[in-house]
Formats: sequence, structure tokens, C-alpha cells
Amino acid sequence: MDEVREHDYVLLYLDERRKYLIKLERNKKLHTHKGYIVLDEIIGKKFGERIKSNIGEEFVICKPTIRDFILKFARKTQIIYPKDASYIAFIGGISNGSKVVEIGTGSGALTCSLASLVKPNGHVYSYEIREEFYEIAKKNIEMLNLFEYVTLKLKNALEGIDEKDVDCVIMDIPNPWDLISIAKEALKGSGILISFSPTINQVEKTLRSLIENKFIDIHVVELIEREFQVDPSRLRPKTTIIGHTGYITWARKSI
Amino acid sequence: MDEVREHDYVLLYLDERRKYLIKLERNKKLHTHKGYIVLDEIIGKKFGERIKSNIGEEFVICKPTIRDFILKFARKTQIIYPKDASYIAFIGGISNGSKVVEIGTGSGALTCSLASLVKPNGHVYSYEIREEFYEIAKKNIEMLNLFEYVTLKLKNALEGIDEKDVDCVIMDIPNPWDLISIAKEALKGSGILISFSPTINQVEKTLRSLIENKFIDIHVVELIEREFQVDPSRLRPKTTIIGHTGYITWARKSI
Amino acid sequence: MDEVREHDYVLLYLDERRKYLIKLERNKKLHTHKGYIVLDEIIGKKFGERIKSNIGEEFVICKPTIRDFILKFARKTQIIYPKDASYIAFIGGISNGSKVVEIGTGSGALTCSLASLVKPNGHVYSYEIREEFYEIAKKNIEMLNLFEYVTLKLKNALEGIDEKDVDCVIMDIPNPWDLISIAKEALKGSGILISFSPTINQVEKTLRSLIENKFIDIHVVELIEREFQVDPSRLRPKTTIIGHTGYITWARKSI
Amino acid sequence: MDEVREHDYVLLYLDERRKYLIKLERNKKLHTHKGYIVLDEIIGKKFGERIKSNIGEEFVICKPTIRDFILKFARKTQIIYPKDASYIAFIGGISNGSKVVEIGTGSGALTCSLASLVKPNGHVYSYEIREEFYEIAKKNIEMLNLFEYVTLKLKNALEGIDEKDVDCVIMDIPNPWDLISIAKEALKGSGILISFSPTINQVEKTLRSLIENKFIDIHVVELIEREFQVDPSRLRPKTTIIGHTGYITWARKSI
Repeated sequence: MDEVREHDYVLLYLDERRKYLIKLERNKKLHTHKGYIVLDEIIGKKFGERIKSNIGEEFVICKPTIRDFILKFARKTQIIYPKDASYIAFIGGISNGSKVVEIGTGSGALTCSLASLVKPNGHVYSYEIREEFYEIAKKNIEMLNLFEYVTLKLKNALEGIDEKDVDCVIMDIPNPWDLISIAKEALKGSGILISFSPTINQVEKTLRSLIENKFIDIHVVELIEREFQVDPSRLRPKTTIIGHTGYITWARKSI
Repeated sequence: MDEVREHDYVLLYLDERRKYLIKLERNKKLHTHKGYIVLDEIIGKKFGERIKSNIGEEFVICKPTIRDFILKFARKTQIIYPKDASYIAFIGGISNGSKVVEIGTGSGALTCSLASLVKPNGHVYSYEIREEFYEIAKKNIEMLNLFEYVTLKLKNALEGIDEKDVDCVIMDIPNPWDLISIAKEALKGSGILISFSPTINQVEKTLRSLIENKFIDIHVVELIEREFQVDPSRLRPKTTIIGHTGYITWARKSI
Repeated sequence: MDEVREHDYVLLYLDERRKYLIKLERNKKLHTHKGYIVLDEIIGKKFGERIKSNIGEEFVICKPTIRDFILKFARKTQIIYPKDASYIAFIGGISNGSKVVEIGTGSGALTCSLASLVKPNGHVYSYEIREEFYEIAKKNIEMLNLFEYVTLKLKNALEGIDEKDVDCVIMDIPNPWDLISIAKEALKGSGILISFSPTINQVEKTLRSLIENKFIDIHVVELIEREFQVDPSRLRPKTTIIGHTGYITWARKSI
Repeated sequence: MDEVREHDYVLLYLDERRKYLIKLERNKKLHTHKGYIVLDEIIGKKFGERIKSNIGEEFVICKPTIRDFILKFARKTQIIYPKDASYIAFIGGISNGSKVVEIGTGSGALTCSLASLVKPNGHVYSYEIREEFYEIAKKNIEMLNLFEYVTLKLKNALEGIDEKDVDCVIMDIPNPWDLISIAKEALKGSGILISFSPTINQVEKTLRSLIENKFIDIHVVELIEREFQVDPSRLRPKTTIIGHTGYITWARKSI
């Protein structure tokens, strides 16, 4: 139902700048600049209801979405932003049943997005060579309870991708061009390869490798996201924005 | 398998401007500016392989993704573009099991995107008041074979939304502000309402109604998509682009 | 010549983040995080040469342009940014001989840009109602030595614009719509009215007033400026940018 | 005065898509899709007044600005757009008295913009190697009557720039990196070099050459211009826009 239970994750919303994504445990308090909240009091309430801090400030109890979790990851490490993650999943045609290989797990933000889309019948195989990121990603995937759909590997994909007949390979690594022939072997015929890179020099090299490896339907795209100030009498885009995250390069394998 | 079978949809790729999304039927030909292709010859081939037209031009046989279908719909009617559709699905937290109401089916492009994400355990309920769009959407959803996950209604949502405890309501209509209190009733607590509108005047009115109806975590976003020319020696964004599709306004229900 | 003289303004360039726009006076020092510079040592050098601080850091002595002065003003008050100021001057057709009225002097950044373009035969008449901005603008115009081409007025333009047969009226005020009929009287036939506003609600009202007042050739434009990281091996737009400054609305007077 | 005289250029405005920039000559007619206009009838009228075609359609008589001329050039050849031309002039600090070298005259659009800013005491020296462009530019500069402030050269700047102590060198050529050491010689100390290039590969090479030649204060910028639909009840950016023109790279000479 809509009732909040022990061990649930909830997002406590005070205002745009103050949202708290926490796990509900008994006998705990959440301390905020606007007083503390006794977590036991939340258990049994309904999502959408309000809870008061000890000094009377009202927080709305929200059910977190995958986006809320990912933005929480972003506070600690760099992530692929929602605008890019959702676009990547879409061009990859990723949905229930998809078999996906990710190279460069990072914090696991994209891994989690993908896992939430391939379930219940698909799977994400994710390669990471840096142990500290492997550990961070592990924690994050556990937080979202998605390990049923994810195999996390501390392994250099340059030494080979174990999977075959993959629907989509997604790369977020400094040198995607080195992996393209390996990714090609893992992919199904007409399968989709996607690479996310911050610099245009990386895009240039990736394109050359894609062309050499006879990929077709090649695209390079960047998405600019503008968020507005939410005041209906003073509507305007926010002054400061993230003006660049990275370029999305993608293509299809031809045999 | 990867083998192409009768009745499959395939995307035949010649170059960036010439892609053909067709259904494979026996005894048929596809006529193009580069000669015709005998469809029987494709059956039994593998995705990713090439097929020659009668004048020797090579086409790559690709498995279409949801994106390919949607871009095909776009040739006949206006659609919500992939960049917006994928973003909407992401902020709505839509995945296997989600219960979604769509108001304003239009050509069914977003309906299909959503259906491909909620399967196998979720469902999309889509309202349309214009009979001609209802019929177009019906055909499109059938083409993608997604009716198991979609209920299409020729009904004005202003007269009431039949569903309750909905995870996400998505509106693509000229007057979203008129529907917000009705959408609120259908939504679960902390459920997400999303509205897509081309003009900023619509955004203004929608915001006023969201605030009146005590929605929280309100956002207005626009996405600008820049595609590049795919020539590694002459990298540059394309000269002419779609500079605007619409604004995405979204918020959470508080009780 | 190119020789630096006493009382000249110079821009001392260390790196992208550390530039110092100062007036050269005898017996003074400029203190920086990289040591101090004895200003007397700069006098007599050539622009483009280097000067060392007491700890050996090299600064390049540059001749400041109008842009450098304006970016200096920006540290203290809000200004119309170079991208907008230059566009405004261009659509206004402003060059030597132009007669321009500015409503809303602010810090005088745009005033100075305009004055540098109308000289030697044109003139800028600038109206400001807030005394503190009048004083700031006065100082800034003096710094650039442009008072020969500017008349600064502490006066509400709502009470009337004193000038007639004006080539261009430029407004940077919260309520441009209230001034449009008054601006029209001041303008020559087919003269150009330009308004700069941060919110789209202001644009809406301004447009209604322009249409009512029979202006023609009406435009609304926004400019998004993306600066790149200057590393040829890692080319990419900067992560954080100014995503919005304001909308430029402009039109021509018809009689 | 504001009175229209024989031999004047006028802009006849019908609506956003139909504007006619013509020279007023006796005994001539302008033929439009909305009837013809007898040019003699315009002479003696005032700018801002209306003139009727033989079928009663009203056109407003406007004084063209430099922008109108340049957009007229754009119909025949590629030009540097107003948004870029005005920005370039601004960062170059170009105003009355500036001494400017342009390499790559093209159609002369930027040449005219610059000339209109350096007058009456400055000068623009413009180099072009393609004879057909030299001729087009010549005509365009004549149309604007700006030859007093422009020296047009049919000469390859690679063989040397004749001018010294130049305030600003502006390049719009395919290989700016080959000219940078030559441009440096022509520039004053701390003078400004600006290059406009459509591709990022050109920017990369230009940057390497600027760094090698010890230029400082190096920037790369792109400007995205979004024009809105001018309907106050349906405010929105236009659907299709020019998404890319080119990158502006600029820097200062250090000795």
C-alpha cells in the first residue's frame, strides 16, 4: 500500500534545497537545520503526508524515485546526470528483458537506472577497474536493492567482455576508442553501442574507431538542460546552470 | 535468436537520411530511390547483415528500437520527442510495475514509450478526446504489440479519471491547469504529475494551479538537443536544429 | 604610442582567474596573492610586455578594452553582459553619430558601451531614478572618460523623455511596458526600441504594449553563451555557465 | 531629416517574412506578391510612414540599419551572423579610431559591420584571396558607402600583412593556425586576435598555435541565439533555429 514501513527509504521534502533521502529505522532521529524528526513517527503514515520537526517545521514524506537516489549519489561522486542517463536508456532501447553491458561503473548511478529498466527479465553486467568505485557502486546498488539484476565485475574490459549477444554496450571511460572492437564482439548484430565522454577530442577518436569497425547509424548528441525558477509571476530560466556534462556518441553494429 | 523472421519489423539502413521501418511479409518488395529490395530475401538473415537492392545498393538489416518506431510516427503527426519522452519517463520513476495515466494520447508515441517501460507488471491508461487521434494511436500501439499494457480510452478526462492510486499522471494537452485537481485525486500520495506544454503561458497557468493544489517539489525544465555532424575531421553541431519542443513541468502530490 | 603612461588604465594579466584592472599612479603598489607590483615600474613599458612581482611572478601588461572595464563593473553590481550589450548595440544600428536614449542606467555598463560606439558625433542620454545607481554610473563613466558623449539624468522617464528624433531607445527597467508610448514619442520614424528583461512575464506585457502602440518588426531573442575550457587536448564547454541573463525584445516605430 | 530622398536605401516592411531592402530610384516599381509599389511615391515621405501597393497592401518605410544590409547579403552568400559579428566587434574593443585587419573578407558582411564602427577615424584592411568574393564584397561595401573606411585587398595574407600596430586582427578562414605568427607581427602589444571557425577541429589547431605563439587571455566561445514567436498569448522559442554558426576563439598578444 501507500503506508510507510520500517526499513523503507523516504524522501523528506522541506523545500527545493532541502530534501533528505533516508532509511527509516526505529529509535533514530534526522537532524536538520529546521529541527529534528523522530523517524518512528513516520512509520505508519502515508506517502504524501506531512511530518513536523521538533520545532514545528513541516516536511512532506515522499516515496523516492530512481532519480532521487541518483541525485543523492551525485553528492559524493560524479555521475551521469538524469538527462543523459534517461536519453542513453532510450536510444539503447532498454526495457524489461534487455541484456546490457556497462563499461565504467563509476558510482553505479547509470547502473541503477539501467537495472530498474531491465527488470524483471533482463540483466546489467558492469565492469569497473578502480576498486574504490567498485565498492561505492556496490553500496549504491545494494541501497536500491537491485543486485538481482546486476552483475558487478572488478575487471578490465580490455581483457575481454565475457558476455555475448548483448543488446547494448554503454561506455563511460576515458578511452572508449580502445574498447570498440571488443564491445563489437559482445554485441548482437545491429546491437547498440553508446559512449559518454566529456571532451570533444574523445568524441573524435571514438568516431574514427566506430567508422573503422563498420558501425552504422552513428550519432553524436549533447543535451542542454535548463531549469526554470518556479515563480509563475517571474518565470525565467535559472541564472547558473550546468552548461555541459558530456557528449553521447552512439551507433549500431553491422556485421 | 538474432534471425529475422516473417512478420518481424526491421529497420533497413542505407544512410542517415534513408532508413526504412517495415514489416516483413512474403512476396513483397520495398521500393526505394536506390532500387527495390525483395523482402523474402531478408527472412532468415541475421540482424546486422546487409541486403542488396536490385541495383546493388547495400542496406543493413537492423532490429528497430522503440525510438525508431516513434520517429516513424513523427512523420505523420506531432509527437513528444525522444529527448522529452525519456526524460519524462525518468522523472516519473516509470519502470516495471508502474501504474500510469496519460491525458492526451495524441499519436501514441509517448504511450508506447511508457508501455515498453511498465511491462510486464504495470499498465498505462491513456485518455484521448479526438477520435482521429484515438484511431492513429490504436494503430501505432498495435504495431508495437503493446496493447497488453495499455488501455486506450476515447474519453474526456475532465469528466473524471477512472483510476486511483496512480504512480504518475502525464499530460500533453492544451489546458493542463484544468485537469490538475482531477489528476491529484487519481494520484497516490507523493505521486508525480508531469505536464508537457509548448508555450510558456501554459507553464505559467499550470504552475499557478499546481501551487493552489498544494503540489510540492515543482520543477520546470526544457531540454535542448544538439546533434553533431558525424565527420571526425570536421566536428561541429548541425546548422539547423529543433530549438524548442516544449517545457516539462512536474511536481509531487502532497496530501 | 604603445608606451604605458602615468594615469593610464592597464589590465595586468596573470591567468584566466587573476586579472587586475588598475590606474597607474606613481608611488603605488598592487598587492596580489602572487606578490606585489610596483606601479612605477610599469610606466614606460610597452603594452604586451611582462612585469614581475616582488616574488618573481610575471604579469602581462594589457591595454584594457571596453569589455574589461564592464566586467570590472560587474563585480559590484548587476550589468548587461557583453553578449547582450553588443547584440543590443548591433540591432540598434548604433555607431558614430547615433542619438540614443537609455532608460535605466544601472551601473552604466551599457551606457559606456553605447558611448564608445556613438563617439565622436553621437550622444547617449541616460535616465536613472535610483540615486545610488546614478552615482555608481557617474563614477564608471568618468573612469572611462566618456562624459563628452553621455548626459546622465536623475529623472523618471515616465514624466517624459526630453529628447526628440532619437535613433534608438533602450530600456532596462522592471516595467518597460509603461514607457513604450513615451519612448515612441521620442523616437524617429522607424526608430528602434529595445527592451532587456529577465523574466518572460515582462516580455509578454512588453509585447502587448508594442503591438498596441503599432510597433512593427517585433522580435524577442535570447542569447546563450558557452565558454570552453581552453585546453586543446581536452576541449569541452565549461561545466557551469550563466544559463540566462535576459530576453531582448525589440521593434521599429511605425507612424 | 527623416524625409526619404532619391537614392536612399529603404527597407519596406510588410511582415516578418516579407521585407524588401531597395534603393529608391525614379520611375521604378517594386514587384511583390502583394502587388507593386511605385518608388516615386515613397520619395518625400517620412521614415515610419506607410505606403500602399497597387492592390492596397500597406508597407512601412524603414531606414535600414547595418543589420538589414547584412541579412540581405546573407541571402546570396554565407556570412558571419549578427550575433557573432557584434560579439566579435565587442571583444575586439572596436570603435571610432580602431585599426583592424580582417583576413577572409568573404561577402564583406563583417567588413561592413567593422567599418561602421571604426568610422570616422579608424580603418579596416581586409584580405581576400578568392576573386569572386573580392568582387561580391566590393559591391556590398559600395552599397553601404563605406569605402572611405575600408581597404580591400586581393591578396594572400600568408605572404604577409602590410599593416603594423594593428589593434585587432580578425580571421574567418579555413586554416587560421597558419596565419597566427603573421597576425602576431601585425598586432600591437596586447592587441587582440579573433578567429571564427565552424568546426571544433579548427579550434583545436588554432588553440595550439596561439599557445605556441605565447598569446594570453585565450578564450573559446559559442553563442546560441533563440528567437521567440512573437505572440504574447503563445510565447515560445521558434521550433527550428540555427543551432550552430561557429566558434569564436580569441586572445591577446604578449611580447
